[in-house]
Amino acid sequence: MKKVILTGDRPTGRLHVGHYVGSLKERVRLQNSGEYDDIYIMIADAQALTDNAEHPEKVRQNIMQVALDYLACGLDPEKATIFIQSMVPQLTELTFYYMNLVTVSRLQRNPTVKAEIKMRDFEASIPTGFFCYPISQAADITAFHATTVPVGEDQMPMLEQCKEIVHKFNSVYGETLTDPSIMLPQNQACLRLPGIDGKAKMSKSLGNCIYLSEEPEDIKKKVMSMFTDPNHLRVQDPGKVEGNPVFIYLDAFCRDEHFREFLPDYQNLQELKDHYQRGGLGDVKVKKFLNAVLQAELEPIRNRRKMWEQRLPEVYEILREGSKKAEATAAATLQEVRHAMKIDYFENENLLK
Amino acid sequence: MKKVILTGDRPTGRLHVGHYVGSLKERVRLQNSGEYDDIYIMIADAQALTDNAEHPEKVRQNIMQVALDYLACGLDPEKATIFIQSMVPQLTELTFYYMNLVTVSRLQRNPTVKAEIKMRDFEASIPTGFFCYPISQAADITAFHATTVPVGEDQMPMLEQCKEIVHKFNSVYGETLTDPSIMLPQNQACLRLPGIDGKAKMSKSLGNCIYLSEEPEDIKKKVMSMFTDPNHLRVQDPGKVEGNPVFIYLDAFCRDEHFREFLPDYQNLQELKDHYQRGGLGDVKVKKFLNAVLQAELEPIRNRRKMWEQRLPEVYEILREGSKKAEATAAATLQEVRHAMKIDYFENENLLK
Repeated sequence: MKKVILTGDRPTGRLHVGHYVGSLKERVRLQNSGEYDDIYIMIADAQALTDNAEHPEKVRQNIMQVALDYLACGLDPEKATIFIQSMVPQLTELTFYYMNLVTVSRLQRNPTVKAEIKMRDFEASIPTGFFCYPISQAADITAFHATTVPVGEDQMPMLEQCKEIVHKFNSVYGETLTDPSIMLPQNQACLRLPGIDGKAKMSKSLGNCIYLSEEPEDIKKKVMSMFTDPNHLRVQDPGKVEGNPVFIYLDAFCRDEHFREFLPDYQNLQELKDHYQRGGLGDVKVKKFLNAVLQAELEPIRNRRKMWEQRLPEVYEILREGSKKAEATAAATLQEVRHAMKIDYFENENLLK
Repeated sequence: MKKVILTGDRPTGRLHVGHYVGSLKERVRLQNSGEYDDIYIMIADAQALTDNAEHPEKVRQNIMQVALDYLACGLDPEKATIFIQSMVPQLTELTFYYMNLVTVSRLQRNPTVKAEIKMRDFEASIPTGFFCYPISQAADITAFHATTVPVGEDQMPMLEQCKEIVHKFNSVYGETLTDPSIMLPQNQACLRLPGIDGKAKMSKSLGNCIYLSEEPEDIKKKVMSMFTDPNHLRVQDPGKVEGNPVFIYLDAFCRDEHFREFLPDYQNLQELKDHYQRGGLGDVKVKKFLNAVLQAELEPIRNRRKMWEQRLPEVYEILREGSKKAEATAAATLQEVRHAMKIDYFENENLLK
């Protein structure tokens, strides 16, 4: 069986370092591993519209931003198909038919939907499209016969829902769809990076993100203003590393060579943490180190992004070509689905029997 | 503005006399009135699948039956476009985007959905596709810029839902969709013909329908076994005409000339009713008259149906051609919708702005 990845992002804003350590870095690694026959990266504009129906401009404007972030991180259109969800209309048709295989009460029990409804303060006024997005996501995954879906832990219920649809479809209409597996991030620190203010989630509206496109001086300003251990008042006090954003970021980003280059007094992160916990290590010193690490990591990304910003028509072509390829794959799957459901009336003479 | 009709039926069984007086006869009249620029008649297989997902065979087999019933009643492919819903994939895409404009709680309040959920004993296990079918119906109506939707009174909430979607879409994305009007049956008796057993609804499973394809002897058998006034025991007893299926059928079918031909003792239906109510008129005599009327009405329909049954490949072509035409119209509307929503990225260079 072919090994196929499907993953992607909603284009509701520029991508930040949380996206980078949480998924983008791993995607680039998977892309370059040579282990996958096909990799589809979806810019999920149609999904973004389910709760931004009145702001299509916002979604549209972020499509190019997300594409630039992808290319900046090293996603390579020669190796991965980057496409725009709404440009693959077959996905809506699959969604439509899968909707018959899922009950309303099953959707209501979906923990991810529950959590997101709460987060968005929807309560009684959930748009139906948003309510049904687990089904739409199942359409996205199965349209490409994806075997592997690299997502965060919070998306596990979505994949469970997809697997249920696959099993139901295959049992009602015969073996057609591919059962996907979830691939969780391996590095614990990468599961979810907090905001620089220590809040659990980075969000544009809270202004607590470091973006991939950020300029060096802005990165520095944000790092130096980061929330740390609030009880670590004097240098000589012992400090906490658990729940301390500066150390969580170091967990996610720094490698031993960063110490050799920027902070040779320590061999590795464990030594730095020990010193901080003992007392005698100031936040400013640790933040300066984190800044050096982030600058080193983000510089090549920012430079590649600037390069692509000069070549927007090429990016447009990459998206157009990717969408065309994705549409061809989804169309082939849709034909299999229609055939299995026997609603391919004009492909044969079954109607006359 | 062009005057356009959209209407149709779910292909879950052959059509019966209830469909005939309730809608088919009127459709033929509208078709021949010359007042409409376009008439689209949809065989709603995709909608039928929302609560028959596990029985696609049943739906598929009834498509040709419904098409035959249409042609038998006098629908003319030269004047009306007969098409199959699932062969117009644009309808699923419109449904997908309209789903963002309707809240879950609004769907839950839809009286038609409520009633149908009750009728089907779905309760907690409503398929999501079924739950959302008012949105899908709005897609069907708007895809053809229908101005006129001839349906039964029970469908009024569905049309209300459609109008809400049209208003919402036009106010968010700019004037795009056409606001449809409902056209209710004019003849009170045609609103809903009861079953021959007196039950409010004809249903295949209850075996209480007279089908359009029924043979003369079967029509007679069914008419003679019809439920009447249960208190009209002896001929001389006064009888009730209200709620008496035999008289409801006569209300729907008989015209004065039927009396001249089959029952010249009476001038018209009122005289017959008066006699029945006074007493002295037996059920058998009334039933025989109803049988004669029904035979006269149904004979040409049955004959045309038999003629078309000999020409199934032509019927298949009619459906194929109708579906092609319907798809072209829906595709043009979808393009307008995508343009209004500004998700026509590759039709222009908006992504680069």
